[in-house]
Amino acid sequence: MLTLALDTATEVCTTGLVKDGKILAEYDISVGLTHSEGLMPQIEQMVSRTGIKKEEIDRIAVSIGPGSFTGLRIGLAAAEAIAYAWQCGICGVNTLEAMAWNIPVEGVVLAPVLDAQKGNFYSALYTWEGRDLITVKPVSMMGADALLQQLQEQDKPVILLGECRRMLGRELPVGIVAAPEQVRLPKASSVALAAEGLEALTGADIFSMRPYYIRKSEAEELWDKRHPKE
Amino acid sequence: MLTLALDTATEVCTTGLVKDGKILAEYDISVGLTHSEGLMPQIEQMVSRTGIKKEEIDRIAVSIGPGSFTGLRIGLAAAEAIAYAWQCGICGVNTLEAMAWNIPVEGVVLAPVLDAQKGNFYSALYTWEGRDLITVKPVSMMGADALLQQLQEQDKPVILLGECRRMLGRELPVGIVAAPEQVRLPKASSVALAAEGLEALTGADIFSMRPYYIRKSEAEELWDKRHPKE
Repeated sequence: MLTLALDTATEVCTTGLVKDGKILAEYDISVGLTHSEGLMPQIEQMVSRTGIKKEEIDRIAVSIGPGSFTGLRIGLAAAEAIAYAWQCGICGVNTLEAMAWNIPVEGVVLAPVLDAQKGNFYSALYTWEGRDLITVKPVSMMGADALLQQLQEQDKPVILLGECRRMLGRELPVGIVAAPEQVRLPKASSVALAAEGLEALTGADIFSMRPYYIRKSEAEELWDKRHPKE
Repeated sequence: MLTLALDTATEVCTTGLVKDGKILAEYDISVGLTHSEGLMPQIEQMVSRTGIKKEEIDRIAVSIGPGSFTGLRIGLAAAEAIAYAWQCGICGVNTLEAMAWNIPVEGVVLAPVLDAQKGNFYSALYTWEGRDLITVKPVSMMGADALLQQLQEQDKPVILLGECRRMLGRELPVGIVAAPEQVRLPKASSVALAAEGLEALTGADIFSMRPYYIRKSEAEELWDKRHPKE
Protein backbone atom coordinates (compact mmCIF):
# COMPACT_ATOMS: atom_id res chain seq x y z
CA MET A 1 0.00 0.00 0.00
CA LEU A 2 1.31 3.42 -1.00
CA THR A 3 0.34 6.30 1.31
CA LEU A 4 0.84 10.01 0.79
CA ALA A 5 0.83 11.68 4.21
CA LEU A 6 0.77 15.23 5.48
CA ASP A 7 0.76 17.01 8.82
CA THR A 8 0.20 20.76 9.22
CA ALA A 9 -1.00 20.75 12.83
CA THR A 10 2.08 22.59 14.09
CA GLU A 11 4.80 24.93 12.81
CA VAL A 12 6.15 22.03 10.72
CA CYS A 13 4.74 21.49 7.25
CA THR A 14 5.60 17.84 6.66
CA THR A 15 4.75 15.58 3.73
CA GLY A 16 5.76 11.99 3.07
CA LEU A 17 5.38 8.90 0.94
CA VAL A 18 5.41 5.46 2.59
CA LYS A 19 5.06 2.15 0.79
CA ASP A 20 4.35 -0.96 2.91
CA GLY A 21 6.25 0.44 5.89
CA LYS A 22 9.20 1.76 3.86
CA ILE A 23 9.72 5.53 3.83
CA LEU A 24 10.20 6.55 0.20
CA ALA A 25 10.19 10.27 0.86
CA GLU A 26 9.83 12.81 3.61
CA TYR A 27 9.88 16.57 3.18
CA ASP A 28 9.76 18.73 6.32
CA ILE A 29 9.73 22.53 6.41
CA SER A 30 9.82 24.46 9.68
CA VAL A 31 10.16 28.17 9.02
CA GLY A 32 6.94 29.51 10.52
CA LEU A 33 3.42 29.38 9.15
CA THR A 34 3.96 29.22 5.41
CA HIS A 35 1.71 26.16 5.09
CA SER A 36 -1.07 27.73 3.05
CA GLU A 37 1.20 28.74 0.18
CA GLY A 38 3.80 26.03 0.53
CA LEU A 39 1.94 22.77 1.14
CA MET A 40 0.64 21.98 -2.34
CA PRO A 41 3.87 22.79 -4.24
CA GLN A 42 5.74 20.78 -1.60
CA ILE A 43 3.58 17.70 -2.26
CA GLU A 44 3.78 18.17 -6.02
CA GLN A 45 7.59 18.45 -5.97
CA MET A 46 8.02 15.50 -3.64
CA VAL A 47 5.79 13.16 -5.65
CA SER A 48 7.46 14.27 -8.88
CA ARG A 49 10.95 13.76 -7.37
CA THR A 50 10.15 10.13 -6.49
CA GLY A 51 8.93 9.37 -10.00
CA ILE A 52 5.74 7.89 -8.53
CA LYS A 53 2.60 8.30 -10.63
CA LYS A 54 -0.48 9.74 -8.98
CA GLU A 55 -2.49 6.64 -9.92
CA GLU A 56 -0.16 4.51 -7.78
CA ILE A 57 -1.12 6.30 -4.56
CA ASP A 58 -3.71 4.29 -2.60
CA ARG A 59 -4.60 6.73 0.13
CA ILE A 60 -3.96 10.10 1.72
CA ALA A 61 -3.21 10.08 5.45
CA VAL A 62 -3.73 13.40 7.22
CA SER A 63 -3.13 14.57 10.75
CA ILE A 64 -6.54 15.80 12.03
CA GLY A 65 -5.58 17.30 15.39
CA PRO A 66 -5.39 18.40 18.04
CA GLY A 67 -3.31 21.32 16.80
CA SER A 68 -3.44 24.76 15.23
CA PHE A 69 -6.95 25.59 13.92
CA THR A 70 -5.69 27.16 10.74
CA GLY A 71 -3.05 24.51 10.21
CA LEU A 72 -5.57 21.69 10.54
CA ARG A 73 -8.00 23.36 8.13
CA ILE A 74 -5.25 23.79 5.53
CA GLY A 75 -4.17 20.16 5.92
CA LEU A 76 -7.68 18.71 5.71
CA ALA A 77 -8.69 20.85 2.76
CA ALA A 78 -5.55 19.84 0.88
CA ALA A 79 -5.97 16.15 1.75
CA GLU A 80 -9.62 16.15 0.62
CA ALA A 81 -8.82 18.00 -2.59
CA ILE A 82 -6.03 15.57 -3.45
CA ALA A 83 -8.09 12.48 -2.57
CA TYR A 84 -10.89 13.79 -4.77
CA ALA A 85 -8.64 14.73 -7.70
CA TRP A 86 -6.53 11.57 -7.57
CA GLN A 87 -9.49 9.33 -6.70
CA CYS A 88 -7.99 7.66 -3.67
CA GLY A 89 -9.04 7.04 -0.07
CA ILE A 90 -8.40 9.33 2.89
CA CYS A 91 -7.51 8.51 6.46
CA GLY A 92 -7.48 10.83 9.49
CA VAL A 93 -4.89 10.29 12.21
CA ASN A 94 -4.71 11.78 15.70
CA THR A 95 -1.77 14.22 15.70
CA LEU A 96 -0.48 13.17 19.13
CA GLU A 97 -0.74 9.45 18.36
CA ALA A 98 1.14 9.96 15.08
CA MET A 99 4.01 11.59 16.99
CA ALA A 100 4.33 8.44 19.13
CA TRP A 101 5.37 6.69 15.89
CA ASN A 102 8.47 8.96 15.78
CA ILE A 103 10.00 6.88 18.59
CA PRO A 104 8.79 3.28 18.22
CA VAL A 105 10.79 1.85 21.14
CA GLU A 106 9.75 -0.08 24.23
CA GLY A 107 10.51 0.71 27.86
CA VAL A 108 9.49 4.37 27.85
CA VAL A 109 6.30 6.43 28.09
CA LEU A 110 5.91 8.83 25.16
CA ALA A 111 4.21 12.12 25.97
CA PRO A 112 3.43 14.19 22.87
CA VAL A 113 2.21 17.65 23.86
CA LEU A 114 0.86 20.56 21.83
CA ASP A 115 0.25 24.14 22.88
CA ALA A 116 -3.49 24.66 23.45
CA GLN A 117 -2.95 28.38 24.19
CA LYS A 118 -3.87 30.21 27.42
CA GLY A 119 -1.35 28.17 29.42
CA ASN A 120 -2.90 24.84 28.47
CA PHE A 121 -1.52 21.82 26.61
CA TYR A 122 -3.08 18.98 24.66
CA SER A 123 -1.41 15.76 25.66
CA ALA A 124 -1.73 12.00 25.72
CA LEU A 125 0.52 9.18 26.93
CA TYR A 126 1.57 6.17 24.88
CA THR A 127 3.87 3.19 25.25
CA TRP A 128 5.09 0.53 22.82
CA GLU A 129 4.62 -3.17 23.52
CA GLY A 130 6.40 -4.88 20.65
CA ARG A 131 4.74 -3.51 17.54
CA ASP A 132 1.59 -2.39 19.38
CA LEU A 133 1.10 1.20 20.42
CA ILE A 134 -0.76 1.26 23.76
CA THR A 135 -2.66 4.36 24.92
CA VAL A 136 -1.72 4.92 28.58
CA LYS A 137 -3.79 8.14 28.87
CA PRO A 138 -6.13 9.39 26.12
CA VAL A 139 -6.01 12.95 24.77
CA SER A 140 -6.84 15.66 27.29
CA MET A 141 -6.15 19.34 27.89
CA MET A 142 -4.52 20.62 31.06
CA GLY A 143 -2.07 23.16 32.47
CA ALA A 144 1.68 22.59 32.67
CA ASP A 145 1.69 21.84 36.40
CA ALA A 146 -1.01 19.17 36.17
CA LEU A 147 0.71 17.66 33.14
CA LEU A 148 4.11 17.46 34.84
CA GLN A 149 2.41 15.90 37.87
CA GLN A 150 0.89 13.23 35.60
CA LEU A 151 4.23 12.56 33.93
CA GLN A 152 5.98 12.11 37.29
CA GLU A 153 3.47 9.41 38.23
CA GLN A 154 4.61 7.15 35.37
CA ASP A 155 6.64 4.07 36.25
CA LYS A 156 8.90 4.33 33.17
CA PRO A 157 11.19 7.10 31.85
CA VAL A 158 9.10 9.71 30.02
CA ILE A 159 10.03 11.27 26.66
CA LEU A 160 8.30 14.54 25.81
CA LEU A 161 7.51 15.22 22.15
CA GLY A 162 5.89 18.07 20.25
CA GLU A 163 5.73 21.65 21.51
CA CYS A 164 7.20 20.64 24.83
CA ARG A 165 9.67 23.53 24.89
CA ARG A 166 6.82 25.92 25.56
CA MET A 167 6.27 24.29 28.94
CA LEU A 168 9.93 24.19 29.82
CA GLY A 169 10.41 27.49 31.56
CA ARG A 170 10.92 25.15 34.47
CA GLU A 171 13.57 22.50 35.10
CA LEU A 172 12.40 19.03 34.03
CA PRO A 173 12.10 16.51 36.89
CA VAL A 174 14.43 13.47 36.87
CA GLY A 175 13.14 10.74 34.53
CA ILE A 176 11.55 13.17 32.08
CA VAL A 177 13.48 14.24 28.96
CA ALA A 178 12.63 16.07 25.76
CA ALA A 179 12.96 14.02 22.57
CA PRO A 180 15.96 14.75 20.32
CA GLU A 181 15.26 17.53 17.80
CA GLN A 182 15.23 15.05 14.86
CA VAL A 183 12.14 13.22 16.15
CA ARG A 184 10.49 15.84 18.37
CA LEU A 185 7.95 17.33 15.98
CA PRO A 186 5.33 15.75 13.67
CA LYS A 187 6.67 13.70 10.76
CA ALA A 188 4.50 12.78 7.79
CA SER A 189 6.11 9.34 7.64
CA SER A 190 4.81 8.68 11.14
CA VAL A 191 1.32 9.82 10.09
CA ALA A 192 1.47 7.32 7.22
CA LEU A 193 2.68 4.50 9.47
CA ALA A 194 0.00 5.25 12.09
CA ALA A 195 -2.65 5.16 9.34
CA GLU A 196 -1.69 1.72 8.04
CA GLY A 197 -4.11 -0.19 10.27
CA LEU A 198 -7.01 2.24 9.78
CA GLU A 199 -9.88 2.06 7.31
CA ALA A 200 -9.92 4.81 4.70
CA LEU A 201 -12.93 6.91 3.69
CA THR A 202 -13.64 6.70 -0.03
CA GLY A 203 -15.96 8.22 -2.65
CA ALA A 204 -18.19 11.08 -1.44
CA ASP A 205 -17.29 10.19 2.18
CA ILE A 206 -13.88 11.79 1.82
CA PHE A 207 -15.52 15.15 2.51
CA SER A 208 -17.00 13.97 5.81
CA MET A 209 -13.70 14.12 7.66
CA ARG A 210 -13.66 16.64 10.51
CA PRO A 211 -10.71 18.12 12.42
CA TYR A 212 -10.26 16.97 16.00
CA TYR A 213 -10.30 20.31 17.77
CA ILE A 214 -11.15 19.27 21.36
CA ARG A 215 -12.02 22.83 22.18
CA LYS A 216 -13.72 25.56 20.19
CA SER A 217 -11.83 28.17 18.23
CA GLU A 218 -11.52 31.71 19.58
CA ALA A 219 -14.01 32.83 16.95
CA GLU A 220 -16.57 30.20 17.96
CA GLU A 221 -16.15 31.03 21.64
CA LEU A 222 -16.76 34.69 20.89
CA TRP A 223 -19.81 33.81 18.78
CA ASP A 224 -21.27 31.67 21.59
CA LYS A 225 -20.64 34.47 24.08
CA ARG A 226 -22.42 37.00 21.89
CA HIS A 227 -25.24 34.62 20.96
CA PRO A 228 -26.13 32.85 24.22
CA LYS A 229 -28.52 29.91 23.81
CA GLU A 230 -31.85 30.47 25.52
CA MET B 1 25.19 29.64 11.71
CA LEU B 2 23.12 28.42 8.77
CA THR B 3 24.23 25.12 7.23
CA LEU B 4 23.02 23.48 4.03
CA ALA B 5 23.74 19.76 4.30
CA LEU B 6 23.59 16.80 1.95
CA ASP B 7 24.26 13.08 2.08
CA THR B 8 24.30 10.84 -0.99
CA ALA B 9 26.48 8.04 0.39
CA THR B 10 23.62 5.51 0.36
CA GLU B 11 20.31 4.88 -1.40
CA VAL B 12 18.90 7.96 0.39
CA CYS B 13 19.33 11.35 -1.24
CA THR B 14 18.94 13.66 1.74
CA THR B 15 19.27 17.44 1.96
CA GLY B 16 18.68 19.74 4.91
CA LEU B 17 18.96 23.23 6.34
CA VAL B 18 19.93 23.69 9.98
CA LYS B 19 20.30 27.02 11.77
CA ASP B 20 22.06 27.05 15.15
CA GLY B 21 20.89 23.53 15.96
CA LYS B 22 17.32 24.04 14.75
CA ILE B 23 16.22 21.95 11.77
CA LEU B 24 14.56 24.35 9.30
CA ALA B 25 14.14 21.78 6.54
CA GLU B 26 14.86 18.21 5.65
CA TYR B 27 14.09 16.54 2.34
CA ASP B 28 14.77 12.79 2.04
CA ILE B 29 14.21 10.69 -1.07
CA SER B 30 14.76 6.93 -1.08
CA VAL B 31 13.64 5.45 -4.37
CA GLY B 32 16.91 4.00 -5.68
CA LEU B 33 19.84 5.75 -7.26
CA THR B 34 18.28 8.87 -8.75
CA HIS B 35 20.80 11.13 -7.02
CA SER B 36 22.61 12.41 -10.12
CA GLU B 37 19.47 13.88 -11.67
CA GLY B 38 17.55 14.64 -8.49
CA LEU B 39 20.02 16.18 -6.05
CA MET B 40 20.37 19.70 -7.46
CA PRO B 41 16.64 20.32 -8.10
CA GLN B 42 15.95 18.89 -4.62
CA ILE B 43 18.30 21.44 -3.01
CA GLU B 44 16.97 24.27 -5.16
CA GLN B 45 13.33 23.48 -4.27
CA MET B 46 14.06 23.06 -0.57
CA VAL B 47 15.97 26.33 -0.25
CA SER B 48 13.30 28.15 -2.23
CA ARG B 49 10.50 26.63 -0.09
CA THR B 50 12.10 27.97 3.12
CA GLY B 51 12.38 31.49 1.73
CA ILE B 52 16.05 31.57 2.73
CA LYS B 53 18.36 33.57 0.49
CA LYS B 54 21.51 31.93 -0.79
CA GLU B 55 23.64 34.70 0.74
CA GLU B 56 22.38 33.71 4.18
CA ILE B 57 23.94 30.23 3.98
CA ASP B 58 27.26 30.09 5.85
CA ARG B 59 28.49 26.66 4.87
CA ILE B 60 27.81 23.44 3.04
CA ALA B 61 28.16 20.22 5.07
CA VAL B 62 28.62 17.07 3.02
CA SER B 63 28.89 13.43 3.91
CA ILE B 64 32.27 12.24 2.52
CA GLY B 65 32.08 8.50 3.17
CA PRO B 66 32.48 5.68 3.58
CA GLY B 67 29.70 4.80 1.17
CA SER B 68 28.81 4.30 -2.48
CA PHE B 69 31.60 5.48 -4.80
CA THR B 70 29.25 7.09 -7.28
CA GLY B 71 27.02 8.53 -4.56
CA LEU B 72 29.96 10.17 -2.79
CA ARG B 73 31.29 11.64 -6.03
CA ILE B 74 27.88 13.14 -6.84
CA GLY B 75 27.57 14.59 -3.34
CA LEU B 76 31.05 16.09 -3.24
CA ALA B 77 30.82 17.56 -6.73
CA ALA B 78 27.46 19.15 -5.88
CA ALA B 79 28.73 20.49 -2.53
CA GLU B 80 31.84 22.00 -4.12
CA ALA B 81 29.87 23.54 -6.97
CA ILE B 82 27.38 25.13 -4.57
CA ALA B 83 30.08 26.36 -2.17
CA TYR B 84 31.88 27.94 -5.14
CA ALA B 85 28.77 29.51 -6.67
CA TRP B 86 27.33 30.76 -3.38
CA GLN B 87 30.73 31.71 -1.96
CA CYS B 88 30.45 29.85 1.31
CA GLY B 89 32.58 27.36 3.25
CA ILE B 90 32.46 23.60 2.96
CA CYS B 91 32.77 20.93 5.61
CA GLY B 92 33.22 17.16 5.15
CA VAL B 93 31.65 14.79 7.66
CA ASN B 94 32.24 11.07 8.15
CA THR B 95 29.08 9.29 6.97
CA LEU B 96 29.02 6.80 9.86
CA GLU B 97 29.64 9.47 12.49
CA ALA B 98 26.84 11.61 11.03
CA MET B 99 24.41 8.70 11.44
CA ALA B 100 25.23 8.57 15.15
CA TRP B 101 23.59 12.02 15.35
CA ASN B 102 20.29 10.40 14.31
CA ILE B 103 19.99 8.95 17.82
CA PRO B 104 21.61 11.37 20.28
CA VAL B 105 20.79 9.41 23.44
CA GLU B 106 22.98 8.05 26.23
CA GLY B 107 23.18 4.49 27.53
CA VAL B 108 23.55 2.69 24.20
CA VAL B 109 26.29 1.92 21.69
CA LEU B 110 25.43 3.12 18.18
CA ALA B 111 26.73 0.95 15.36
CA PRO B 112 26.24 2.53 11.93
CA VAL B 113 27.13 0.05 9.19
CA LEU B 114 27.34 0.38 5.42
CA ASP B 115 27.64 -2.31 2.79
CA ALA B 116 31.27 -2.47 1.55
CA GLN B 117 30.38 -5.17 -1.02
CA LYS B 118 31.88 -8.68 -1.25
CA GLY B 119 30.40 -9.65 2.13
CA ASN B 120 32.12 -6.81 3.98
CA PHE B 121 30.77 -3.88 5.99
CA TYR B 122 32.14 -0.50 6.95
CA SER B 123 31.36 0.14 10.59
CA ALA B 124 32.28 2.18 13.64
CA LEU B 125 30.97 2.32 17.20
CA TYR B 126 29.87 5.46 19.00
CA THR B 127 28.29 6.39 22.31
CA TRP B 128 26.89 9.63 23.69
CA GLU B 129 28.12 11.12 26.96
CA GLY B 130 25.90 14.11 27.52
CA ARG B 131 26.35 16.23 24.41
CA ASP B 132 29.65 14.62 23.45
CA LEU B 133 29.84 11.90 20.84
CA ILE B 134 32.55 9.41 21.85
CA THR B 135 34.17 7.09 19.29
CA VAL B 136 34.24 3.60 20.87
CA LYS B 137 35.76 1.97 17.74
CA PRO B 138 36.97 3.95 14.71
CA VAL B 139 35.90 3.13 11.15
CA SER B 140 36.98 -0.26 9.88
CA MET B 141 35.91 -2.85 7.33
CA MET B 142 35.08 -6.44 8.25
CA GLY B 143 32.78 -9.35 7.53
CA ALA B 144 29.38 -9.82 9.18
CA ASP B 145 30.59 -12.50 11.61
CA ALA B 146 33.48 -10.44 12.92
CA LEU B 147 31.23 -7.41 13.20
CA LEU B 148 28.54 -9.25 15.18
CA GLN B 149 31.27 -10.64 17.44
CA GLN B 150 32.49 -7.07 18.11
CA LEU B 151 28.95 -5.88 18.83
CA GLN B 152 28.36 -8.71 21.33
CA GLU B 153 31.43 -7.64 23.29
CA GLN B 154 29.87 -4.23 24.10
CA ASP B 155 28.71 -3.63 27.67
CA LYS B 156 25.65 -1.58 26.63
CA PRO B 157 22.68 -2.35 24.35
CA VAL B 158 23.68 -1.89 20.71
CA ILE B 159 21.59 -0.10 18.07
CA LEU B 160 22.45 -0.87 14.45
CA LEU B 161 22.01 1.91 11.90
CA GLY B 162 22.53 2.21 8.18
CA GLU B 163 22.47 -0.71 5.78
CA CYS B 164 22.21 -3.17 8.64
CA ARG B 165 19.44 -5.18 6.98
CA ARG B 166 21.94 -6.54 4.51
CA MET B 167 23.72 -8.38 7.33
CA LEU B 168 20.52 -9.64 8.88
CA GLY B 169 20.04 -12.92 7.11
CA ARG B 170 20.77 -14.18 10.59
CA GLU B 171 18.88 -13.71 13.86
CA LEU B 172 20.23 -10.76 15.87
CA PRO B 173 21.74 -11.71 19.24
CA VAL B 174 20.04 -10.45 22.42
CA GLY B 175 21.01 -6.84 23.20
CA ILE B 176 21.40 -5.85 19.53
CA VAL B 177 18.51 -4.17 17.71
CA ALA B 178 18.09 -2.35 14.42
CA ALA B 179 17.17 1.34 14.67
CA PRO B 180 13.58 2.33 13.85
CA GLU B 181 13.08 3.05 10.13
CA GLN B 182 12.67 6.81 10.76
CA VAL B 183 16.24 7.22 12.02
CA ARG B 184 18.01 4.24 10.46
CA LEU B 185 19.49 5.82 7.32
CA PRO B 186 21.53 8.99 6.77
CA LYS B 187 19.78 12.30 7.45
CA ALA B 188 21.12 15.60 6.16
CA SER B 189 20.10 17.32 9.40
CA SER B 190 22.46 14.97 11.26
CA VAL B 191 25.26 15.80 8.82
CA ALA B 192 24.68 19.49 9.54
CA LEU B 193 24.64 18.95 13.31
CA ALA B 194 27.80 16.81 13.17
CA ALA B 195 29.54 19.56 11.17
CA GLU B 196 28.81 22.33 13.67
CA GLY B 197 32.05 21.88 15.62
CA LEU B 198 34.25 21.45 12.55
CA GLU B 199 36.29 24.04 10.68
CA ALA B 200 35.14 24.75 7.13
CA LEU B 201 37.33 24.94 4.05
CA THR B 202 37.00 28.26 2.22
CA GLY B 203 38.19 29.97 -0.96
CA ALA B 204 40.16 27.80 -3.36
CA ASP B 205 40.51 25.13 -0.64
CA ILE B 206 36.91 24.03 -1.18
CA PHE B 207 38.12 21.91 -4.10
CA SER B 208 40.67 20.06 -1.96
CA MET B 209 38.05 17.91 -0.24
CA ARG B 210 38.41 14.19 -0.95
CA PRO B 211 35.95 11.35 -0.44
CA TYR B 212 36.72 8.93 2.40
CA TYR B 213 36.71 5.67 0.49
CA ILE B 214 38.74 3.42 2.83
CA ARG B 215 39.27 0.97 0.01
CA LYS B 216 39.86 1.40 -3.68
CA SER B 217 37.09 1.33 -6.23
CA GLU B 218 36.60 -1.76 -8.42
CA ALA B 219 38.03 0.21 -11.35
CA GLU B 220 41.15 1.21 -9.42
CA GLU B 221 41.69 -2.35 -8.20
CA LEU B 222 41.43 -3.61 -11.77
CA TRP B 223 43.85 -0.90 -12.97
CA ASP B 224 46.39 -1.83 -10.25
CA LYS B 225 46.07 -5.50 -11.18
CA ARG B 226 46.70 -4.79 -14.84
CA HIS B 227 49.47 -2.29 -14.17
CA PRO B 228 51.56 -3.86 -11.39
CA LYS B 229 54.18 -1.60 -9.85
CA GLU B 230 57.74 -2.72 -10.45
